[in-house]
Formats: sequence, structure tokens, C-alpha cells
Amino acid sequence: MLDDVVSSDSKFRAIHVMLNPRSIAIVGATERAQYGGRFVSNLLKTGCKAELFPINPNRETIFDLPCYHSIPELPAAVDLAAIIIPAPSVLEALWQCAEKGVKSAVVISAGFAELGTEEGRARQAELQRLVSETGLRVCGPNCLGLANVAESIWAAAGSRLATDMTAFAGSIGLVSQSGATGFGPLIATAQDRRVGYRYIVSTGNEADLESSDFAQYMLQDPKIKVVAMLVEGFRSGRKFVETAELALEVGKPIVLLKVGRSVVGSRAAGSHTAAMTGSDVVQDALFRQKAVIRVDDYDELIETANMFVKAKPPRGERVGVVSHSGGIGSFLADKCGEVGLELPALSDGTRDKLREILGERGSAANPADVTGFALNDGFPAILQTLLSDEGLDVQVVASAGGESQAATVSRAAEECDKPVVFLWTGSFKDTKTLPLLQDGPAPVFYLPGRCAKGVRRLLDYHAAKKRILSDRTERQEWLAKWPEDTLERLGMLASNPTGVILDEHESKRILSGFGVPVTRESLCINLEEAFSAAATIGYPVALKVVSPDIPHKTEAGAVRLGIGSSEELADQYENMLRTVRCRCPHAAICGVLVQEMRGGVAELIAGVSRDPQFGPVLMLGLGGILVEAIGAASWRVCPITQSDARLMIGEVKGLSKLLAGFRGRASGDLDALVSCLVRISQMAVHARDTVASLDINPLAVLPKGQGVVALDALIVRAGHNAVILGDQE
Amino acid sequence: MLDDVVSSDSKFRAIHVMLNPRSIAIVGATERAQYGGRFVSNLLKTGCKAELFPINPNRETIFDLPCYHSIPELPAAVDLAAIIIPAPSVLEALWQCAEKGVKSAVVISAGFAELGTEEGRARQAELQRLVSETGLRVCGPNCLGLANVAESIWAAAGSRLATDMTAFAGSIGLVSQSGATGFGPLIATAQDRRVGYRYIVSTGNEADLESSDFAQYMLQDPKIKVVAMLVEGFRSGRKFVETAELALEVGKPIVLLKVGRSVVGSRAAGSHTAAMTGSDVVQDALFRQKAVIRVDDYDELIETANMFVKAKPPRGERVGVVSHSGGIGSFLADKCGEVGLELPALSDGTRDKLREILGERGSAANPADVTGFALNDGFPAILQTLLSDEGLDVQVVASAGGESQAATVSRAAEECDKPVVFLWTGSFKDTKTLPLLQDGPAPVFYLPGRCAKGVRRLLDYHAAKKRILSDRTERQEWLAKWPEDTLERLGMLASNPTGVILDEHESKRILSGFGVPVTRESLCINLEEAFSAAATIGYPVALKVVSPDIPHKTEAGAVRLGIGSSEELADQYENMLRTVRCRCPHAAICGVLVQEMRGGVAELIAGVSRDPQFGPVLMLGLGGILVEAIGAASWRVCPITQSDARLMIGEVKGLSKLLAGFRGRASGDLDALVSCLVRISQMAVHARDTVASLDINPLAVLPKGQGVVALDALIVRAGHNAVILGDQE
Repeated sequence: MLDDVVSSDSKFRAIHVMLNPRSIAIVGATERAQYGGRFVSNLLKTGCKAELFPINPNRETIFDLPCYHSIPELPAAVDLAAIIIPAPSVLEALWQCAEKGVKSAVVISAGFAELGTEEGRARQAELQRLVSETGLRVCGPNCLGLANVAESIWAAAGSRLATDMTAFAGSIGLVSQSGATGFGPLIATAQDRRVGYRYIVSTGNEADLESSDFAQYMLQDPKIKVVAMLVEGFRSGRKFVETAELALEVGKPIVLLKVGRSVVGSRAAGSHTAAMTGSDVVQDALFRQKAVIRVDDYDELIETANMFVKAKPPRGERVGVVSHSGGIGSFLADKCGEVGLELPALSDGTRDKLREILGERGSAANPADVTGFALNDGFPAILQTLLSDEGLDVQVVASAGGESQAATVSRAAEECDKPVVFLWTGSFKDTKTLPLLQDGPAPVFYLPGRCAKGVRRLLDYHAAKKRILSDRTERQEWLAKWPEDTLERLGMLASNPTGVILDEHESKRILSGFGVPVTRESLCINLEEAFSAAATIGYPVALKVVSPDIPHKTEAGAVRLGIGSSEELADQYENMLRTVRCRCPHAAICGVLVQEMRGGVAELIAGVSRDPQFGPVLMLGLGGILVEAIGAASWRVCPITQSDARLMIGEVKGLSKLLAGFRGRASGDLDALVSCLVRISQMAVHARDTVASLDINPLAVLPKGQGVVALDALIVRAGHNAVILGDQE
Repeated sequence: MLDDVVSSDSKFRAIHVMLNPRSIAIVGATERAQYGGRFVSNLLKTGCKAELFPINPNRETIFDLPCYHSIPELPAAVDLAAIIIPAPSVLEALWQCAEKGVKSAVVISAGFAELGTEEGRARQAELQRLVSETGLRVCGPNCLGLANVAESIWAAAGSRLATDMTAFAGSIGLVSQSGATGFGPLIATAQDRRVGYRYIVSTGNEADLESSDFAQYMLQDPKIKVVAMLVEGFRSGRKFVETAELALEVGKPIVLLKVGRSVVGSRAAGSHTAAMTGSDVVQDALFRQKAVIRVDDYDELIETANMFVKAKPPRGERVGVVSHSGGIGSFLADKCGEVGLELPALSDGTRDKLREILGERGSAANPADVTGFALNDGFPAILQTLLSDEGLDVQVVASAGGESQAATVSRAAEECDKPVVFLWTGSFKDTKTLPLLQDGPAPVFYLPGRCAKGVRRLLDYHAAKKRILSDRTERQEWLAKWPEDTLERLGMLASNPTGVILDEHESKRILSGFGVPVTRESLCINLEEAFSAAATIGYPVALKVVSPDIPHKTEAGAVRLGIGSSEELADQYENMLRTVRCRCPHAAICGVLVQEMRGGVAELIAGVSRDPQFGPVLMLGLGGILVEAIGAASWRVCPITQSDARLMIGEVKGLSKLLAGFRGRASGDLDALVSCLVRISQMAVHARDTVASLDINPLAVLPKGQGVVALDALIVRAGHNAVILGDQE
């Protein structure tokens, strides 16, 4: 597979050469203890088989290697040039590389966009121009380099080294924007756990090649089972989406440590690299939609990636726990419960068999407390009994026993088709049993909380993967579904210069074209028309002033609700127009909307906005001022499928309860809401270029079987600043 | 101090003897690899200086020690007897110990209440009878024993041993209900981090001495700086409260790992020990009120306890971060932001000084990215510059440099009066630098997330301690405040047999006695009285049927709101009574309440219920069905202070926003709400024995300056099951 990819795509060919160079030039090589010196000595220490060409105008040799004085002097076009010289000289060196026919370059030097200065940004733009003109592909600048551990190529300037390269080689591909993290704690953490990488790539500012490019390459390498990423900000959101989709297709998980959970962190990362961290809720939504596994810390990145390398796919979600200790077992059970894992009771047969082994001691339950039997000859039978229980899908062993326990667990993990996970409760420094476990087929965790979260992620990933792949057809069908005139009306928005916002009536017409149910209503230009409309619709009705200049009708006094008779209609009609003219003297008024009154089981807000990285984003939240203050909402990147919509509804706190018929109230039309959300997301995709934002507020969910209805709607055209919706927090 | 305590209190005397025995009898000693054998060999391996008396009817020697055949044969009354024999023989052995004058006992044997059988419970009750009759104090049963590390006494049957006892001795006292956890992962985790204990006590079933007893002893030992606890369930909630108060008084933190966050865990722990895990929200509230530091996993217990041993009290909450890496710094900053830590910008002076050292490289900001300067001669000046910045209160160094970096940090932590915290980003297995740091004066963390949480807890603990100690006077004043007749009326509830619930009117009279504002209202027995009451109160009014048999008035049709005139009053009055008689034909009706109508900025629910372990508990939540479905609420154990009330209000999601005047609405009377909550909690304390529960629903918060008012209230008398309030989830 990899060969095809590499031969057909120049970008992947460049990455392939970078990671498998037969010759490396080091521009800025030195013997001193700085980046240029460490880079050369790292290559030497790890026994690199590539031919090395140190370049330094003032030296004849570097660490006994013959030294060249300049790039043009190189005897041949090398596979990889590492640039480790002051920033002002980098561009010239790269031009010389291109001229020489060098096949790829990694720029360690800092002093580009990350400075935040005009000069730095200009220098980076210059580098990008070079790439597009010459076709020379570049990793960096402001990175620490890369390593192909399996091939003992350590082309990196970090001070931390894998001492035993062969032992350290594994099937995880690591891509880290931060060089000092990738070649620092992410190596230390992996080595403490005897987890190995095949590749380590630090991408720095990503002026040319970005994290997603390397991840895509690795996903297509049959020797890689999992891609681990540390990302501060995506240079291209779209490309990351493609990467995540590729990962699903090839069935290899992406485990991601993403900076930017908090404003403080976003700010720090922003000042540190050129990448923006982006909106965290939108990214979290995208990760859920694409089965990207987001983790929270260094240890989780390593342990989770390792789990996905080793653990078999589970058939279901029921977890069994066994330990030598009741206290450890119940604490682990507590942690499992916190993340919503289910620990079912053992079947009678399993319980009886365990009881037979345990006698009076311990507890033949789930979690099973098997006391000293965890360490003696009884353990293989105990574990076998649990693994044979059809009511359990994942088995966790929490212990710190000796070599025989480790062998029992490894054998079971090897032979059984269920995932077997080990929670090590001993010391990290154990040199007898722990390495056996770490090198065995069962993934190892070191803390109850991390272990429970790990298992949760294993289950979630496989469930999400299955769901997303089976939704593929649905997604295709939806996109092809819309009639020409509906799409045309959308398209006209771009050319029609009639103002920033579409009024309620116009907005609803567009929604309606996508099958989103809206209120029955009529736009009237005088009282007579209003009388007639109200008679047709039936009292009570609502009155609303329609004006593209009044996005917030309530504040303008432009709404009257529950009008019960023609007398009241006459009275309110005039009064409302007087109020509006007084409060908004310059608003162009198109007419008055006479509208049916509808009340629902729940009033929601559904909105679409545009994320600069991921395009249109759908938001669903509870309506009403109290709940707005609480901020219960869920997000997804458009388009969504029906199962996405159901998950969204589940994520809006309290909503599932309300729709199920809370406290004796009627239950809501869940299916109609699901379908409506999908349709809104479809509109958002088709309106990608013409609509900046959409708000349906409120969207009423009617009792079961009666559907949903948009009571009010507001579309803001693209090209206009969405700040007009300033009250959306 | 410890001497006084020990000489004046027989319980502490027994604990003191247990932890400092000069002679130990081991009942059930053996040479085999089981509990009795490990117990003896552990004592021998760790060089115990106490005299040892193995007891085994079938042996003459055990590991070359002369063996006794029975307890009566012992040559003297030993300080400590360890009982490691089958459960059915334990009681007899303990009676013999008592007779012999043995000063204390630790029962390793299992087979008591933890079995969940009648037999097990009876055996444990028998043990408790022995304790109360003989005065012999017992640790266990179903535990692993205890250790006085500082004195090299390892009276425990666990297989994990501190190999170098002197190196392992520290100033943390560890109390663990789970023996296998205390003598398992909590030792391994501590040793990996070179964190030392002074005592390790496993308490098992706590038939006699419980965790709190040992914790209290340790808190009074001047050599202990922090008490670390692992608790599955408190045997006595009240005693734990006393323990937490003692901790505040002596200024030593309690760091607590409490099982029972989830239902799964509670169930598992319940089946494992005799202790109930209790309500997690109530316990969390109590921990906040008493500055008990709750942690989430083994590593956090150790690292947090160690931090409190070492870190100086901070003057403020502003955190500085410095690292050799921008990526590590910004990830740590992200983690800091997640837990609400503030990383302010550096002062101009600090920034300029850093810039001078760094030159063109790195970033002179917060977080500071000082690149290779973290490892060279520039670092002492960098750290000194940051520590001199008056705008920073805590300094975190995130790195994995060499010995000189470690020395610089240690020196700074020693000399500076700010807390200095180290985040180690290298390997756990580092043997050169890491041990220097671990043995130095700066607390060490190993993951960015744990480090940020640790600093958060440092700040929170010191803030809470200060707040609680300064609230002490207020708490005393409140308790003495209430007039005799108010308390009498409460007392009468106990003797008055008029039913399970107090009607709204009665409930409000009692609240009113404690200064809780209630609606103006009048209980009327006929329409004429209602007319006259409504005229006095002023229309619109509300009508409510008053009956102790109707706790849920709305469902019974017993409420009419917004009655605007005497005509409407007449109409609704009759209609309401007809409806109620039809729906609740057997309800005794005391009359009809005519009540003023009040609307507020926010409608809340305030309730009191009784926790079986901690007594009356106050709950504050948002009212309204939507928000009920969301479940935004906060809890505190009564009584509370004004600052507790303010924190509660802050914890109810959305409430602070609402009270501050959300979206142009009026702001609410925060001070009145605070005072009202304190008063309700006062009532709850005085009504501890007479009131089972209280609900004020809704409690309206009026605009600023206008107070709060209880619109409805319901008291359920004690001795009656609170299930009547079944709709409270």
C-alpha cells in the first residue's frame, strides 16, 4: 500500500524520503553542545546507516566525519538536508538545497512566524514561496527534527535519546508540533512504559508540511497501528478532517493530545507557535464525529495509544474486574462507574466456579476479590472462568503479582478473543514482573482512573467507528436530496445585495425548502390583510414586525403574542407599529407577520455558525433565559447524520429527560427533532458560501407524532460580520 | 503535645502503644508464606527492636525465635498482640489477651461483617462487646496491620516492604481502610516518588478504632505534617467532622482519597467492607466546608500530601510558569487554565530582565520559554528574576534538566518565601537528577495536569483554611441568636402528634421565627374571611388549600394564582375546594390561605434533609421544571456561614449570572439570599431532632434591596419517612 501512495503522490514521496534517508546533509553541523552538535552526535550515537554530510564553512571534520564548506560543494543530491543555522541564513540555504536537487529538508532553526513579529512572518512567507516554486518539501521551521526508530535514524536535535533503538521500536507513529515535547516527555513517558514508536516527527511551525500530512503518511504505512498526535492548532482544519476520515477507512485510531482546553492555554500556545488553537467545543465535536480519541495528558497519550496497539476489539460494553484486593477492586470499580462503565453481576455459573476455587475467602463477585489466589496456582482457572463468562466483554486484572501471574495474563490476552487489560498496582521501578507485562500482549495501565478511562475509550472508539462507517450511505443520500429551486434560492443570497440579514419570513422560506417545519404565517401590509390572515390561520395569533433592520424583535417591541380576537388584533397592530417606529425610526418595515401560536414540550435554540477551520457548525441548546445562563448546548460540524443528531440531543443537559416526558408532561417528538437537525445541517452545508449564520429561536418540539416547528428564524448572509448576533455568547 | 494527649485519653494511649510497641505477640505465627508467616518475617526483615513473642501451639521456634503455645503462657503482658488465626478462634484469643493485660490488639483475620452474612455480623458485634467490656482497644479486623516507619516497626502482613526504612521515613501519616491498598500501591507510588511516611495504619472493618481515631492521633503528633487517608466509608460522620476540625486547628491538612464517586464503586466498596460509602455530594460539600483535600487517585494522594509537606503557604493566587520548552510551558498553562489558575503577564521589569538574559531566543512571558538557558548558567538569574516579581505568588518550573538545574531550584525553594513547585518532564527511572529534586525542598509533580491540580489545591486549601477560621466567631454568634419561643415552637413538633407534615402556613411560621421572610398571608376558614384578607393584602392574591394531607398542592388542584378581584376570588374559592374534595376526598382541610403574589429575579428551591452520617444538609437549586431536569444545585452540611452561603450560590450553575442581572434584567438581592440561607441552616441545626426535611419551593429572590421571600414551604416531621417528598430526586 505504502509503495503505491509514495509513488503516486509527491508529498508522501518527500515524507518517505525524510523518514528513510540514505544520505543526510547537516547544514550548521558543529561539535559544540548546541542543536547543530546534538543533531550530528545523535545520528552517530544511534548508529545511523545513512551517509552523513556535515556542512560548516570553518571546519574540515566534525566528529571525524569529513566536513563540507557549503551546500553547492556536496558531492551529490542528498535525501535529507537538516538546516540548523541562524534564521536570516535559512532561506539562502534552502534555495541552494533546491538547486542542488536535495530531496527534502527539515528546518530546525527558529526565528520565523513564532516570533510574532513582522520580520518573522515575512521570513515564513518567503519559505512558503520557496516551497511552491521549487517543490522542495520542508518539515519545520522551529522544530527538533524527526526519527525513524525502526531504522535507527535519529535526525533530531533533542537531548533525549532512545538508548536502545531496537527495544524502543514499536508500531505507534508520533507527530508532535512541539519538538521539545515530542523529543522530551513523550519519549520519557513511553520508555518508562516500554512503549515503542516507529516514527517521531516534530513539525514546529508547519510552514509547509503539517501534522496531518505526516499522520496521513503513517496511517498508510502497514507497520503503523496507531497514530499519536500532539497538536497546538490545526493549520488546516479541512485536512485534519480528511486525516481522521482516512484513519477510519484504514481502521487505525488517531490518539490526540490537543492543547487549548482553556483560554490561558490557547493564549500561551498562540504566542508559542503560529497555529491558532481554535474553538475547543467545535473541535471536541469534530473528534466525536470522526472517532478521534482525545486524551488529556502525556501518560494518557502513551497508554491509550499502546492500548489501541494491543487490545482486541470488544464485542460489547460489559466490564469484569478481578484483583487480589477488595480495596483495589472497589476503587477501580468506582473509577469505572465515574466514566459510565457497566460492571454487571457474574453469572451464577461463574460465581459458583469462583466460589469453588476461593473457598471461604475473598469475594466471588464483580469486582472479584480473589485474595492470595491471584498469586498462586488458582489464578489461571480464575481468569479462565471469568473470560468464559458470556456476560463479560472486557476483562481487567488489577494486581502486582509475580512472573507467573504475568505469564497467566499474557497467555490469556493472547488466546482469548476478548480484550484483557492489566492495571499494575506495583512500582514503576519493578524490574522483574513489570517488563514482562509491558512487553506482553495485554495493555498495561498504572492508575485506576487512567485504566477506567482507557477502557471507556476503547469501547467508545469501536462503537463510534462502527456507527460512523454505517452512517456513510446515509450521508451520501442526504447530500443528493435537495431540489434545484431550493439550492437556487440559497445561491441567490450571494448575489442579492438586499442587506445583511434576512428577515424572519425570508429565513423561514429557505429553511422550509430543506424540509424544516415552520409556523403557518402570512406577511401582511395592512390591517385588512392581517384580519383575513388571522381568520384563515385561526385565533390566537402572533404579530411580528418584519424588517431586515430589526434582528432583535422583542427589544424593539416588534412582537405581540396570543392575540385572541379581531378587536385585539386591530388594537395591537397599530400599537405595535407605533412602538417600533418610535424605537427604530430608521428601520425599513416590510410588513407585519400574522402567525399561528404553537407551544411545545420543549423550546430549543438551533443555530449554525461558521468555524474558521471546520466550516459550518450546528449548535443545539435549550431555550429560555435561565437555561441560557446555564449554557446547556451541544455542537457538531456539518453535515450530521441521524445518529449524530441523537448524540447531540443526549449531550444537551436535561433535554433527553424533557423529551421523554418529565414529571408527567407529554413526551416530545424526538424523531422529528432528529430529522430537523439533519436538515438544518444539510442547509448549512449547501449554504457554506452564502450564509454566515442561522438562528432558529425558538425551535418548538411538539408532543410525540406532531413534529417540531421553527417559531422564529434569522439568517445572516455571508460576507457580513456575524457580530450582529452579539447576544449569542 | 502528644504526651499530654496520650496520658489523658485511653484511646490515644492505646494507639500510641500500638504504634510504639516494645513487645509484640503474634498469635498465629508460622514460617509458611501466608499472613502469619509474612507478619513475623516482615518484623524481622525490618529490624524491629520490639521483643517478639510468636504463638503457635504446634511449634517450638519460629524463624529461630522461641515460640509460645498459647496466650496465657506469655511471660508478660505485651504492648501489642497481632491476631492472625481463623475467624472462629479470634474472639477467644482476644478474651485471653484482655485477661493477660495485653495493651492493644490488631486483628488481621478476616471473616467478620465484611462477609455480609449473619454469622460475620454477629462475630463483629461480639468483638465490639469485648472492647466495651474489657477496654482492650482493637485495630481491624480484616486489616493488614500497621507500621511505624520511623521506628522500623513493620507490624503488617502485606507482601510489599519498604526496603530501606530510614530512607522511607517521612512526615506523612497514612490511614487506609483497605490494607492491600495501604500496604500495596500506596507504598509503591510513594517509593517511586521518594515520598516517606511516618506511620501506615490499615483499619479494615473498624469494629473498634476507626480511621478518624488514628488520624486524630497523628494530627497531634508534632512529627506529622500531613495526614493522608484512603476511606471507603466513614464509620462515624460526626467523628470525621471532629477530625477535620482538629486538622484545621493544628494547621495540618488532611488529604483524602474517598471511594464512592459512583454508584458502581459504592456498591463494590459496600460489599467489600462493612462501611457504607454515603452520599457523595454531601461528603464533597463537607470536605469543602472543612478544608479537607479530596483527591482522585493514588498518585494524587501521594503527590498532594507531599506538596503540603513541602510547599510554603502562598500569599496570593497568581502563578508563574517557566520551562525550557514553549510546548511544555503552553501545555502546562492550558492545564492551569482548566482548573481556573491565573497566569498573569509579567511585569515590564521582569520581562526586560528576562529578555536581557534570553537575547533573541525563547519567550520572556508567562509561561516563560527560556530554551537552553534552563540548563545553563543563565538559569539562576532567570529563576531569581521571576521569584522577585511581586506579581507572582507561586512559581512552577517545568523541566528535566541536570543536577545544576535541580540545585538552583532547591536553593530557590529553600530561600524564597513563595512556594516553588517542580514539574518533572523526564523519566521516572532517572537516577541522577530526579532523586535530588525528590529529596529537595520543592514538591515534584510528574504530569502537567496533576501539577496544575496540585497548585490549585494548594491555593484552595490555604484560602479555605483562612476563611473557615475567620468564620468561627460568626458561627458561634448565630447559634446563640434565637429567642426561646422560636426554639420552643420547634421543640413542640416532637411531642405534637398531628401528622407527618406541617402545612404551608405552619411551616412558614416556624421559618419566620428564624427570620426567614415569608409571604404575607392569612389562613381563612370561609369566603368572608378570604374577602377581608384579600382586601388587607391587596389584589392580586393567591389561594391555596391548607391541609397536612396534601403535600403536593398543584397536583391536587389546591392552588389558584393571580386572583385579581373579589368576584374572581369568590368564583375560584368555591371551584378550588370542589376540585380538592373530589381529588383528595380523605384530606383534612384546615382552611384556605389567602396570600400575596410576589415575583422575583430568580425562583429557587432551598431544602433541608438529613444525611445519616452528617446530619442536616442544606440544598440550594434553581427552580422551574427545565432547570430541575438539568439538576443545578449545591449542598452544605448545616450550619453554614455567610461565606459558605456565597460559595453555594456560586456553585449553582447559572445562578450568579442571574443574580448579577442577566441580559438587562434587574439584579437580585444577593445579601438577603445569603442571610436567608444561613437562617435556614440555623433552623435545621436546632430542628435536628424534630424535623426530617424542609422544602422552600419556590424561594423568590427579589430585586436588590427588596430581600427574598418564601412563596411556599413544607416541613416533614422527624420520625416520619421523608419518602413523602418522593418527587425530590
